[in-house]
Amino acid sequence: MRGVASEVLSLLVRQGATVAVAESLTGGLIGATMTGPMGASAAFRGGVIAYATDLKASLLDVPSDLLDREGAVHPDVAAAMAAGVRKLAGSDYGLAVTGVAGPDPQDGKPVGTVHIALAGPGERLWHRDLRLTGDRDGIRTATCQEALRLLEGVLKANSGEHLG
Amino acid sequence: MRGVASEVLSLLVRQGATVAVAESLTGGLIGATMTGPMGASAAFRGGVIAYATDLKASLLDVPSDLLDREGAVHPDVAAAMAAGVRKLAGSDYGLAVTGVAGPDPQDGKPVGTVHIALAGPGERLWHRDLRLTGDRDGIRTATCQEALRLLEGVLKANSGEHLG
Repeated sequence: MRGVASEVLSLLVRQGATVAVAESLTGGLIGATMTGPMGASAAFRGGVIAYATDLKASLLDVPSDLLDREGAVHPDVAAAMAAGVRKLAGSDYGLAVTGVAGPDPQDGKPVGTVHIALAGPGERLWHRDLRLTGDRDGIRTATCQEALRLLEGVLKANSGEHLG
Repeated sequence: MRGVASEVLSLLVRQGATVAVAESLTGGLIGATMTGPMGASAAFRGGVIAYATDLKASLLDVPSDLLDREGAVHPDVAAAMAAGVRKLAGSDYGLAVTGVAGPDPQDGKPVGTVHIALAGPGERLWHRDLRLTGDRDGIRTATCQEALRLLEGVLKANSGEHLG
Protein backbone atom coordinates (compact mmCIF):
# COMPACT_ATOMS: atom_id res chain seq x y z
CA MET A 1 0.00 0.00 0.00
CA ARG A 2 3.04 2.23 0.46
CA GLY A 3 3.27 2.41 -3.33
CA VAL A 4 -0.16 3.90 -3.94
CA ALA A 5 0.32 6.32 -1.01
CA SER A 6 3.60 7.58 -2.50
CA GLU A 7 1.98 7.94 -5.91
CA VAL A 8 -0.97 9.88 -4.42
CA LEU A 9 1.39 12.18 -2.51
CA SER A 10 3.44 12.86 -5.66
CA LEU A 11 0.32 13.65 -7.67
CA LEU A 12 -0.97 15.99 -4.94
CA VAL A 13 2.35 17.82 -4.70
CA ARG A 14 2.56 18.19 -8.50
CA GLN A 15 -0.97 19.65 -8.49
CA GLY A 16 -0.31 21.89 -5.49
CA ALA A 17 -3.17 20.21 -3.64
CA THR A 18 -3.71 18.83 -0.11
CA VAL A 19 -5.87 16.09 1.40
CA ALA A 20 -7.44 15.27 4.76
CA VAL A 21 -9.12 12.02 5.81
CA ALA A 22 -12.22 11.05 7.79
CA GLU A 23 -12.05 7.45 8.90
CA SER A 24 -14.54 5.16 10.56
CA LEU A 25 -13.90 1.42 10.14
CA THR A 26 -10.22 1.92 9.26
CA GLY A 27 -9.63 3.80 12.53
CA GLY A 28 -6.61 5.76 11.25
CA LEU A 29 -5.13 3.27 8.79
CA ILE A 30 -5.49 5.58 5.77
CA GLY A 31 -3.74 8.42 7.60
CA ALA A 32 -1.02 6.07 8.83
CA THR A 33 -0.48 4.83 5.27
CA MET A 34 -0.44 8.34 3.79
CA THR A 35 2.17 9.49 6.34
CA GLY A 36 4.47 6.52 5.83
CA PRO A 37 6.48 8.08 2.97
CA MET A 38 8.91 10.85 3.89
CA GLY A 39 7.77 14.31 2.91
CA ALA A 40 4.08 13.48 3.45
CA SER A 41 3.52 16.80 5.19
CA ALA A 42 3.75 18.59 1.82
CA ALA A 43 0.30 17.27 0.91
CA PHE A 44 -1.28 15.44 3.86
CA ARG A 45 -2.88 17.72 6.46
CA GLY A 46 -4.49 15.27 8.87
CA GLY A 47 -8.06 14.37 9.65
CA VAL A 48 -10.58 12.88 11.98
CA ILE A 49 -11.01 9.33 13.24
CA ALA A 50 -14.79 9.27 13.70
CA TYR A 51 -15.11 5.73 15.04
CA ALA A 52 -18.04 6.40 17.39
CA THR A 53 -21.16 7.37 15.47
CA ASP A 54 -21.82 10.53 17.50
CA LEU A 55 -18.38 11.91 16.55
CA LYS A 56 -19.44 11.81 12.88
CA ALA A 57 -22.07 14.40 13.81
CA SER A 58 -20.15 16.46 16.36
CA LEU A 59 -16.80 16.66 14.56
CA LEU A 60 -17.72 16.31 10.88
CA ASP A 61 -21.20 17.85 10.76
CA VAL A 62 -22.85 14.71 9.41
CA PRO A 63 -26.57 15.44 9.92
CA SER A 64 -27.90 13.64 13.01
CA ASP A 65 -31.21 12.87 11.32
CA LEU A 66 -29.33 11.09 8.51
CA LEU A 67 -27.44 8.99 11.08
CA ASP A 68 -30.67 8.25 12.96
CA ARG A 69 -32.49 7.26 9.77
CA GLU A 70 -29.81 5.33 7.86
CA GLY A 71 -27.21 4.42 10.48
CA ALA A 72 -23.51 5.15 10.12
CA VAL A 73 -22.95 2.90 7.10
CA HIS A 74 -24.50 4.71 4.13
CA PRO A 75 -23.21 6.48 1.00
CA ASP A 76 -24.67 9.82 2.15
CA VAL A 77 -22.81 9.51 5.47
CA ALA A 78 -19.52 8.93 3.63
CA ALA A 79 -20.24 11.97 1.44
CA ALA A 80 -21.00 14.18 4.43
CA MET A 81 -17.85 12.96 6.23
CA ALA A 82 -15.73 13.77 3.15
CA ALA A 83 -17.18 17.27 2.78
CA GLY A 84 -16.96 17.79 6.54
CA VAL A 85 -13.29 16.93 6.88
CA ARG A 86 -12.38 18.91 3.77
CA LYS A 87 -13.92 21.99 5.37
CA LEU A 88 -12.59 21.29 8.87
CA ALA A 89 -9.01 20.77 7.72
CA GLY A 90 -9.06 23.40 4.98
CA SER A 91 -7.79 20.89 2.42
CA ASP A 92 -8.45 20.63 -1.32
CA TYR A 93 -9.66 17.05 -1.00
CA GLY A 94 -11.50 15.19 1.77
CA LEU A 95 -11.39 11.38 1.66
CA ALA A 96 -13.83 9.44 3.85
CA VAL A 97 -14.73 5.84 4.57
CA THR A 98 -17.50 4.19 6.57
CA GLY A 99 -18.42 0.52 6.66
CA VAL A 100 -18.66 -2.75 8.53
CA ALA A 101 -15.33 -4.45 9.31
CA GLY A 102 -16.99 -7.16 11.37
CA PRO A 103 -17.14 -9.66 12.83
CA ASP A 104 -20.78 -8.60 13.40
CA PRO A 105 -23.22 -6.80 11.06
CA GLN A 106 -24.06 -3.18 11.96
CA ASP A 107 -27.41 -1.40 11.59
CA GLY A 108 -28.60 -4.28 9.41
CA LYS A 109 -25.67 -3.91 6.98
CA PRO A 110 -23.63 -7.07 6.35
CA VAL A 111 -19.93 -7.37 7.11
CA GLY A 112 -17.89 -6.02 4.19
CA THR A 113 -20.30 -3.22 3.25
CA VAL A 114 -18.07 -0.18 2.66
CA HIS A 115 -18.77 3.31 1.33
CA ILE A 116 -15.95 5.59 0.19
CA ALA A 117 -16.44 9.25 -0.73
CA LEU A 118 -14.04 11.89 -2.00
CA ALA A 119 -14.92 15.59 -1.83
CA GLY A 120 -12.92 17.96 -4.01
CA PRO A 121 -12.68 21.51 -5.29
CA GLY A 122 -15.90 23.08 -6.60
CA GLU A 123 -18.06 20.86 -4.36
CA ARG A 124 -17.26 17.88 -6.59
CA LEU A 125 -17.92 14.46 -5.14
CA TRP A 126 -16.84 10.97 -6.11
CA HIS A 127 -18.23 7.71 -4.68
CA ARG A 128 -17.27 4.10 -4.46
CA ASP A 129 -19.47 1.48 -2.82
CA LEU A 130 -17.93 -1.90 -2.08
CA ARG A 131 -19.00 -5.29 -0.84
CA LEU A 132 -15.76 -6.77 0.41
CA THR A 133 -15.10 -10.31 1.54
CA GLY A 134 -12.53 -11.52 4.06
CA ASP A 135 -11.82 -11.07 7.73
CA ARG A 136 -11.70 -7.85 9.75
CA ASP A 137 -8.06 -7.11 8.90
CA GLY A 138 -8.59 -7.87 5.22
CA ILE A 139 -11.66 -5.63 4.98
CA ARG A 140 -9.88 -2.73 6.68
CA THR A 141 -6.78 -3.08 4.49
CA ALA A 142 -8.81 -3.36 1.28
CA THR A 143 -10.87 -0.31 2.28
CA CYS A 144 -7.69 1.72 2.74
CA GLN A 145 -6.32 0.58 -0.60
CA GLU A 146 -9.55 1.27 -2.50
CA ALA A 147 -9.85 4.73 -0.93
CA LEU A 148 -6.32 5.64 -2.00
CA ARG A 149 -7.00 4.26 -5.49
CA LEU A 150 -10.11 6.42 -5.81
CA LEU A 151 -8.06 9.51 -4.97
CA GLU A 152 -5.26 8.37 -7.30
CA GLY A 153 -7.72 7.94 -10.16
CA VAL A 154 -9.20 11.39 -9.70
CA LEU A 155 -5.77 13.03 -9.50
CA LYS A 156 -4.57 11.17 -12.61
CA ALA A 157 -7.70 12.24 -14.50
CA ASN A 158 -6.93 15.86 -13.50
CA SER A 159 -3.48 15.59 -14.97
CA GLY A 160 -4.68 13.87 -18.13
CA GLU A 161 -2.69 10.74 -17.31
CA HIS A 162 -5.76 8.58 -17.03
CA LEU A 163 -9.32 8.76 -18.29
CA GLY A 164 -10.83 6.34 -15.71
CA MET B 1 1.36 -4.34 18.98
CA ARG B 2 -2.02 -6.03 18.66
CA GLY B 3 -1.38 -7.59 22.07
CA VAL B 4 -1.00 -4.34 23.98
CA ALA B 5 -3.99 -2.83 22.14
CA SER B 6 -6.18 -5.77 23.15
CA GLU B 7 -4.97 -5.50 26.73
CA VAL B 8 -5.65 -1.75 26.82
CA LEU B 9 -9.16 -2.27 25.39
CA SER B 10 -9.90 -4.97 27.99
CA LEU B 11 -8.72 -2.75 30.84
CA LEU B 12 -10.79 0.19 29.55
CA VAL B 13 -13.93 -1.95 29.24
CA ARG B 14 -13.45 -3.40 32.73
CA GLN B 15 -13.09 0.14 34.11
CA GLY B 16 -16.04 1.48 32.08
CA ALA B 17 -13.74 4.04 30.48
CA THR B 18 -13.15 5.34 26.94
CA VAL B 19 -10.18 6.80 25.08
CA ALA B 20 -9.56 9.12 22.13
CA VAL B 21 -6.26 9.83 20.37
CA ALA B 22 -4.50 12.90 18.97
CA GLU B 23 -1.72 11.90 16.58
CA SER B 24 0.96 13.87 14.85
CA LEU B 25 4.00 11.86 13.67
CA THR B 26 2.12 8.55 13.78
CA GLY B 27 -0.55 9.90 11.41
CA GLY B 28 -3.30 7.52 12.56
CA LEU B 29 -1.23 4.44 13.49
CA ILE B 30 -2.34 4.45 17.14
CA GLY B 31 -6.01 4.61 16.15
CA ALA B 32 -5.50 1.92 13.52
CA THR B 33 -3.84 -0.31 16.12
CA MET B 34 -6.52 0.32 18.75
CA THR B 35 -9.30 -0.57 16.28
CA GLY B 36 -7.65 -3.77 15.07
CA PRO B 37 -9.22 -6.02 17.73
CA MET B 38 -12.92 -6.82 17.37
CA GLY B 39 -15.16 -4.97 19.82
CA ALA B 40 -12.90 -1.90 19.89
CA SER B 41 -15.93 0.39 19.72
CA ALA B 42 -16.76 -0.44 23.34
CA ALA B 43 -13.85 1.73 24.50
CA PHE B 44 -12.27 3.55 21.54
CA ARG B 45 -14.14 6.68 20.44
CA GLY B 46 -11.88 8.10 17.73
CA GLY B 47 -9.67 11.15 17.56
CA VAL B 48 -7.80 13.68 15.50
CA ILE B 49 -4.86 13.28 13.15
CA ALA B 50 -3.21 16.68 13.61
CA TYR B 51 -0.35 16.22 11.17
CA ALA B 52 -0.14 19.85 10.02
CA THR B 53 0.88 22.16 12.85
CA ASP B 54 -2.03 24.58 12.35
CA LEU B 55 -4.52 21.74 12.91
CA LYS B 56 -3.10 21.25 16.40
CA ALA B 57 -4.36 24.78 17.16
CA SER B 58 -7.61 24.80 15.18
CA LEU B 59 -8.85 21.31 16.06
CA LEU B 60 -7.28 20.60 19.46
CA ASP B 61 -7.00 24.09 20.97
CA VAL B 62 -3.24 23.91 21.40
CA PRO B 63 -2.29 27.56 22.11
CA SER B 64 -0.89 29.23 18.97
CA ASP B 65 1.67 31.18 21.00
CA LEU B 66 3.03 27.90 22.41
CA LEU B 67 3.36 26.51 18.87
CA ASP B 68 5.01 29.73 17.67
CA ARG B 69 7.44 29.75 20.58
CA GLU B 70 8.35 26.06 20.95
CA GLY B 71 7.34 24.49 17.65
CA ALA B 72 5.12 21.43 17.37
CA VAL B 73 7.52 19.03 19.11
CA HIS B 74 7.36 19.90 22.80
CA PRO B 75 5.99 18.23 25.97
CA ASP B 76 3.50 21.07 26.53
CA VAL B 77 2.16 20.61 22.99
CA ALA B 78 1.62 16.90 23.65
CA ALA B 79 -0.15 17.75 26.93
CA ALA B 80 -2.43 20.29 25.23
CA MET B 81 -3.23 17.82 22.42
CA ALA B 82 -4.14 15.14 24.99
CA ALA B 83 -6.41 17.47 26.97
CA GLY B 84 -7.85 18.85 23.74
CA VAL B 85 -8.85 15.53 22.22
CA ARG B 86 -10.24 14.28 25.54
CA LYS B 87 -12.58 17.27 25.63
CA LEU B 88 -13.39 17.18 21.90
CA ALA B 89 -14.29 13.49 21.90
CA GLY B 90 -15.87 13.43 25.35
CA SER B 91 -13.68 10.50 26.39
CA ASP B 92 -12.28 9.59 29.82
CA TYR B 93 -8.71 9.51 28.49
CA GLY B 94 -6.95 11.48 25.76
CA LEU B 95 -3.70 10.01 24.40
CA ALA B 96 -1.45 12.26 22.29
CA VAL B 97 1.90 12.04 20.50
CA THR B 98 4.09 14.60 18.77
CA GLY B 99 7.64 14.13 17.55
CA VAL B 100 10.12 13.90 14.70
CA ALA B 101 9.88 10.73 12.58
CA GLY B 102 12.49 11.98 10.13
CA PRO B 103 14.36 11.78 7.91
CA ASP B 104 14.95 15.49 8.66
CA PRO B 105 15.07 17.35 12.01
CA GLN B 106 12.11 19.67 12.74
CA ASP B 107 12.19 23.03 14.55
CA GLY B 108 15.71 22.25 15.73
CA LYS B 109 14.65 18.95 17.35
CA PRO B 110 16.60 15.86 16.24
CA VAL B 111 15.00 12.85 14.56
CA GLY B 112 13.61 10.49 17.21
CA THR B 113 12.51 13.19 19.65
CA VAL B 114 9.03 12.10 20.80
CA HIS B 115 6.65 13.43 23.45
CA ILE B 116 3.70 11.38 24.65
CA ALA B 117 0.98 12.73 26.96
CA LEU B 118 -2.07 11.11 28.50
CA ALA B 119 -4.90 13.21 29.94
CA GLY B 120 -7.30 11.51 32.31
CA PRO B 121 -10.18 12.05 34.70
CA GLY B 122 -9.77 14.86 37.24
CA GLU B 123 -7.42 16.79 34.92
CA ARG B 124 -4.68 14.26 35.63
CA LEU B 125 -1.79 14.17 33.19
CA TRP B 126 0.97 11.66 32.50
CA HIS B 127 4.05 12.26 30.34
CA ARG B 128 6.68 10.25 28.58
CA ASP B 129 9.52 11.85 26.65
CA LEU B 130 11.57 9.62 24.37
CA ARG B 131 14.68 9.82 22.25
CA LEU B 132 14.20 6.98 19.80
CA THR B 133 16.68 5.59 17.31
CA GLY B 134 15.98 3.91 13.99
CA ASP B 135 14.38 4.83 10.70
CA ARG B 136 11.08 6.59 10.07
CA ASP B 137 9.00 3.39 10.23
CA GLY B 138 10.77 2.25 13.38
CA ILE B 139 10.27 5.55 15.15
CA ARG B 140 6.57 5.67 14.27
CA THR B 141 6.00 2.07 15.37
CA ALA B 142 7.92 2.52 18.64
CA THR B 143 5.98 5.73 19.37
CA CYS B 144 2.68 3.88 18.94
CA GLN B 145 3.86 1.05 21.20
CA GLU B 146 5.16 3.37 23.93
CA ALA B 147 1.94 5.41 23.87
CA LEU B 148 -0.17 2.29 24.33
CA ARG B 149 2.15 1.10 27.11
CA LEU B 150 1.77 4.41 28.95
CA LEU B 151 -2.02 4.02 28.86
CA GLU B 152 -1.76 0.35 29.86
CA GLY B 153 0.42 1.26 32.86
CA VAL B 154 -2.00 3.91 34.09
CA LEU B 155 -5.00 1.60 33.70
CA LYS B 156 -3.21 -1.23 35.51
CA ALA B 157 -2.26 1.13 38.34
CA ASN B 158 -5.95 2.10 38.61
CA SER B 159 -6.92 -1.52 39.03
CA GLY B 160 -4.15 -2.24 41.49
CA GLU B 161 -2.53 -4.73 39.10
CA HIS B 162 0.65 -2.74 38.80
CA LEU B 163 2.41 -0.08 40.82
CA GLY B 164 4.54 1.34 37.95
